[in-house]
Amino acid sequence: MLVPAFPSVSVLASEEPTTPGRRGPYRKTVLTREAILSAAMDVFATRGYRAGSMREIAERVGMDQTSILHHYPTKAALLLAVMEERDRRADELIEAEHPQSLRDVPEAFLALARSNVATPGVIQLYSVLAAESVTPDHPLGDYFRDRIARVRTGFAAWFAELDAEGLLRDGVDPAFAASSFLALWEGAQLHGLIDGSGGDVTETLSRYLRLVVRDEAFPAIPATKKKDDVVE
Amino acid sequence: MLVPAFPSVSVLASEEPTTPGRRGPYRKTVLTREAILSAAMDVFATRGYRAGSMREIAERVGMDQTSILHHYPTKAALLLAVMEERDRRADELIEAEHPQSLRDVPEAFLALARSNVATPGVIQLYSVLAAESVTPDHPLGDYFRDRIARVRTGFAAWFAELDAEGLLRDGVDPAFAASSFLALWEGAQLHGLIDGSGGDVTETLSRYLRLVVRDEAFPAIPATKKKDDVVE
Repeated sequence: MLVPAFPSVSVLASEEPTTPGRRGPYRKTVLTREAILSAAMDVFATRGYRAGSMREIAERVGMDQTSILHHYPTKAALLLAVMEERDRRADELIEAEHPQSLRDVPEAFLALARSNVATPGVIQLYSVLAAESVTPDHPLGDYFRDRIARVRTGFAAWFAELDAEGLLRDGVDPAFAASSFLALWEGAQLHGLIDGSGGDVTETLSRYLRLVVRDEAFPAIPATKKKDDVVE
Repeated sequence: MLVPAFPSVSVLASEEPTTPGRRGPYRKTVLTREAILSAAMDVFATRGYRAGSMREIAERVGMDQTSILHHYPTKAALLLAVMEERDRRADELIEAEHPQSLRDVPEAFLALARSNVATPGVIQLYSVLAAESVTPDHPLGDYFRDRIARVRTGFAAWFAELDAEGLLRDGVDPAFAASSFLALWEGAQLHGLIDGSGGDVTETLSRYLRLVVRDEAFPAIPATKKKDDVVE
C-alpha cells in the first residue's frame, strides 16, 4: 500500500468512485436516515449526549419517536451511526481530493481540516463524546478506542512511507509523528472552537508537518508565514 | 519576566512558598471545601457535568445538600471551583519543582504532565467540560476561553525567551510553538485515557519539545528513544 487509509479508505484514488443509482423505497430510507442523522448531530452537539433526547430529535426532523426507533432502536445506536456518518463523510472528502502521490496527501488532510472547521457542531459533539467515552459502560467506548487506533495506524503508515524515501527530518519517528499529528489535530480543533479562531487549525497542522517532514517533500504546503501574520 | 506564568504563577521559584498556620474554624472550612471539591471532581468526572447531581456529591461527602449550597450556591459555582482547584494544584506542583533557569522549565512541565496522568478522572472531567463549554450559555465558557489564552500566553513568553537566546530551531515561531504545545498536550492526554496508554503523554511532549527547541537547550530532556522502544 503506497499511502495509508484515512480513516478507512485508501487516500490514493485509482478511479472515480462509482455511485449506484438509488431510487424508490431504498432511496427514501437513505434520505430519512440522513435527515435523522443530521438532526441528531445538531441536537447532541447542542445538548450533549446525555441531555439530548430522542424526542427533540424526532421533533426537529418532523417524525414521531416510534419512526425514529424503527431506524435506530436505541440512543446508543443513533450516536454510533452519527459518528460513523461523520467518518463516511471524511472518507468521501479525502477521496474527492484524489491524492495521486505522497506529495498530494497533506493537501487532502488539510482539506479535511478545513471542512471540519465549517462544521463546528460536529467537532464539538465529537470532542464531548470522545471525553465522555472514557467513563464506565459508555456506548462509544469501543468506537473511540478503535477509531484512534485505526487513524493512528493510517498516519503511521504514511509517515513510514515518507521515512523510507528519506523525507522525514532527522530523528523523527513515524509512530510518534502519527500519534502527535492526530492529538494535535483534535486538540487544536477544540481550542479553535473555544477561542473562536477555528481557521487556525489548518495553519497549525501545516506548520506541524513542516516540523517533521522535509521541505522538498511537500510543495503543496504553503511556506511558513512571517511571524507578524500569526493570528493569536 | 525571565520565565512566564503557568498557569498563573512564575515557574521560577525565588524562595520557599510560605504556608500560614491554619487552625480553628477557618481550617475547618478549608477542609470541608476540599472534601466537597474532591467529591465533586469524582462525581462530575464519572457522570459528566449535566448528569452529575448535587445530591450525589452531598451523599459522597456525607453532608446534606443545604450545607453544600452554603459553600457553593449553584452547580455552576461548584464546577468553576473544581476547575480553579485543579489550576491551583498545578501551580503548586510547578512551584514545587523550583525551576531556576530556562533549562529547568521543561522538566517542570513534564512533572505536571506526569501528575495529570495520575489523576485520570480530573483530566476526563476537564476534557468533557472543555468541549461542552462551547455550547450556548455554558457556565464555564468564559473560564475555558480565559484559561487557554492565559496558558498560551505563558508558553509563548517562555518560547520567546528561548528564541531570544537562539535556542529555538530555525523557522519555529514562539506563538505557534505555544498554541501547538498546549493543543498537543490536551489532545494527547485525552487519547492516553481513551487507549489506556496515559504514560505516553510525557514522552510525546518531550519529543515535541525536541522538535522545536535545540538540543543544547534542554539537558534535562532524555534523548529520543530508539524506534523499537516506541509503545503504540
